[in-house]
Amino acid sequence: MTNQHATEPKIAEKPAELAAIIRDIREMMARNRLVEGLVDRSQDAHHELVERIVHKQNLTRLAQKIEQLHPADIALILEALPVDERMAIWSLVHADQDGEVLLEVSDAVRMSLLAAMDREEMLNAANTLDTDELADLAPDFPAQVMQEVFTTLPLAERERLRFALSYPEDTVGALMDFDLVTVRADVRIEVVLRYLRRMEDLPDHTDKLFVVNRDSSFVGVIYLKNLLLSDPDLAVHQAMAKEVVRFHPEDKARTTADAFERYDLVSAPVVDEHNRLIGRVTINAVVDFIREARDEERLSQVGLREEEDIFAPIARSVKNRSPWLAVNLVTALVASRVIGLFDGAIEQLVALAALMPIVAGMGGNVGNQTITMIVRELAFRTLDNRDIRLLYSKELRIALINGMIWGGALGLITFLLYHDSALSLVMAGAVSLNFLTAAFFGVTIPVTRMKLGRDPALGSSVLITAITDSGGFFIFLGLATVFLMN
Amino acid sequence: MTNQHATEPKIAEKPAELAAIIRDIREMMARNRLVEGLVDRSQDAHHELVERIVHKQNLTRLAQKIEQLHPADIALILEALPVDERMAIWSLVHADQDGEVLLEVSDAVRMSLLAAMDREEMLNAANTLDTDELADLAPDFPAQVMQEVFTTLPLAERERLRFALSYPEDTVGALMDFDLVTVRADVRIEVVLRYLRRMEDLPDHTDKLFVVNRDSSFVGVIYLKNLLLSDPDLAVHQAMAKEVVRFHPEDKARTTADAFERYDLVSAPVVDEHNRLIGRVTINAVVDFIREARDEERLSQVGLREEEDIFAPIARSVKNRSPWLAVNLVTALVASRVIGLFDGAIEQLVALAALMPIVAGMGGNVGNQTITMIVRELAFRTLDNRDIRLLYSKELRIALINGMIWGGALGLITFLLYHDSALSLVMAGAVSLNFLTAAFFGVTIPVTRMKLGRDPALGSSVLITAITDSGGFFIFLGLATVFLMN
Repeated sequence: MTNQHATEPKIAEKPAELAAIIRDIREMMARNRLVEGLVDRSQDAHHELVERIVHKQNLTRLAQKIEQLHPADIALILEALPVDERMAIWSLVHADQDGEVLLEVSDAVRMSLLAAMDREEMLNAANTLDTDELADLAPDFPAQVMQEVFTTLPLAERERLRFALSYPEDTVGALMDFDLVTVRADVRIEVVLRYLRRMEDLPDHTDKLFVVNRDSSFVGVIYLKNLLLSDPDLAVHQAMAKEVVRFHPEDKARTTADAFERYDLVSAPVVDEHNRLIGRVTINAVVDFIREARDEERLSQVGLREEEDIFAPIARSVKNRSPWLAVNLVTALVASRVIGLFDGAIEQLVALAALMPIVAGMGGNVGNQTITMIVRELAFRTLDNRDIRLLYSKELRIALINGMIWGGALGLITFLLYHDSALSLVMAGAVSLNFLTAAFFGVTIPVTRMKLGRDPALGSSVLITAITDSGGFFIFLGLATVFLMN
Repeated sequence: MTNQHATEPKIAEKPAELAAIIRDIREMMARNRLVEGLVDRSQDAHHELVERIVHKQNLTRLAQKIEQLHPADIALILEALPVDERMAIWSLVHADQDGEVLLEVSDAVRMSLLAAMDREEMLNAANTLDTDELADLAPDFPAQVMQEVFTTLPLAERERLRFALSYPEDTVGALMDFDLVTVRADVRIEVVLRYLRRMEDLPDHTDKLFVVNRDSSFVGVIYLKNLLLSDPDLAVHQAMAKEVVRFHPEDKARTTADAFERYDLVSAPVVDEHNRLIGRVTINAVVDFIREARDEERLSQVGLREEEDIFAPIARSVKNRSPWLAVNLVTALVASRVIGLFDGAIEQLVALAALMPIVAGMGGNVGNQTITMIVRELAFRTLDNRDIRLLYSKELRIALINGMIWGGALGLITFLLYHDSALSLVMAGAVSLNFLTAAFFGVTIPVTRMKLGRDPALGSSVLITAITDSGGFFIFLGLATVFLMN
């Protein structure tokens, strides 16, 4: 993030203010389309000229209005506009801000913006960005343009870009930037202060300077506040903190986010295996990561792979939503075949057909509750075998008690509806057994995924629902066949 | 957060390191229980004395080990231990750290720790905390103790505490702290530097000082980096930023979190309606809020009201999980009664019983996908009527296309299974119609909640599933009755 707009942004901290700006912009655009229409229909050269001027003035005013905005707000506005208006506004965004805005918009909108840019505009946008920001955009740029950007970079930058691109999205290597201010341990603070006063600006989120020795190994940090508060005659090493959190580029981004949260960090050093300082992670990169991870989690819960905005083409949406529907088609078919096994029982006692979805559905609830509690527990720590045994015992006991409560209630309701005591006992038993099944697999699925080193949450809900559906139908209809059929 | 451990924490930035510490601690405790056993069984006074000393030394070593840890890590360790070991460790935590640890642990664990503390220990813990931190703990402290804390506070602190307690959890008033460093606009930077050098420390997350005039109205901020980089002869107002994000105590915490994210803030001023500076919000409070909001969202998706850890008593877990099961019992019963309406049809054609859960289940998927996309859209902005019309049209068109694809596929599968072309047409039609129902209510539910000013996500999933279940059964069995029965 460059510094240009960070200190004095035209701000819109409330959704209502942003909505008002969007309304303004759209009104200005609507008025201008009207003028455009007048220009086209104008018979009279003089009138046409006047209207052309008005039109141009309007566009200039609009461009000025946009230029005052923070790039993050411009991004939000572009996301909120239908494609034609979005493109009109995008053409008015000042070239200096193009890069920043591209960084901030969602993937879907970025694609639409890039599609409207030519090679030169992309090169200009790339020029305004830092290496770590370029690395974030690189996958979306045409390979040819990226190659050109690459060749224009100074050698050091080029190596950094190659470095940043070599780490996957969920690692510290992808999160870090290279905006380091380093000082030596043996110089006096007064010298550091003089050195700083010669600088024009410090990188954003600089709460500390990094202390290194001659071979750039990392030895500690000195907080800006200590530069301000300490006696200027002290040496840096006398005012610095030695034991600080440090990360390696191959560390998991999520672990790093947890550490930022636990230790209330604003920035932290990234070192290589020889403890050489190579970059830093800042809280804003961490917050962005947390938001993206949350968004991805939400989407993946309903099997969506990418965000869609409401202006995205229908075909893309249909494709985006298909994989989950396909998976569920398969699991639903399995459940359906399980029911098909018992068609004789259902023919004899049609009440079974009405009751069986209750057994399946409530089992699914129990399983999803168990998974949610365990995934939450796994977010903070790894479970050892003793913990896992405890989990099984606890969840199974809860399921047993809940099975008696809700199974009992459903048995009673069944009796009131159908006046069949054998059927109501089967119902109560099936609910209890399916609750136990749900609890058992509700522990087994996330714990197994953890042991395999996978994300314990991913796909767990779909899997548990498939098990409690098919399992619930099988248990209920099976018990009914054994105890009620003759 | 006090500063004491922030600069030089004994850190455990990776889960594996924390796990190792927990293992160490548990081993030390196990060894000590062994020694304790020896003391009890000792026949010989001399032996007993020796073993008592060993026991005591062990406890001291353990206490030292714990004292070196960051309070957030002590909190994680306490959460990972079963109740008896947790209490043993808690009694070893240094009194100075009690308050910080209480702030960091989960609600459930905090209850168990407070239950083991007497009045005096609680008062001591309260003494180590800032007003805004006290406000966070206040609801969990016994009223009597809180009253006593209150009376011991200086008048200004007391008013702040009352202030912080008067704002609900999801507002800026509850997020803010009072650790402000203020300066006047007309003094020279050199004077500010001298003033700072007389201070012992600055509050954590001080990236800027707040500039106020005589009646403490807020006029701007000056960044620490500008204090370091600017000419010391300049006046503060010449180096300060005037237009900065500011919040009011009644603002929504979530809106504030969005603004921190968009504008990459570290701290921001909170002002009252007369623009008087009353406090600040820092990024660590925002990150904590984001984490808690995410946790709450996850729990509420499966109808859980509070977190449970794996050592929580069973009875509490059973109670915690009941409301959702109760709600689902009702929705499942409704769906069951819908099926009951068509028992004649099922008796005639038992294949209907096997096929109906597919119609209901896949409709639920479509509805949940629609809701997820819309909730995501609503997180960033408010939708106007034009947007909402666009949403309905888009989602219904996607549902129609998906209905044709998946309805068609299911129609075909039905024909292959049952060789009944009328049944397979009914299946295809029912799937398509239920997809359209799901899309319609998938837009209507969150949009209506938004218009009523509620959280669009809360409970939406339960509601849409209830609709697509009962609706799916009704559509499928209804079509079957009309077209297949005679």
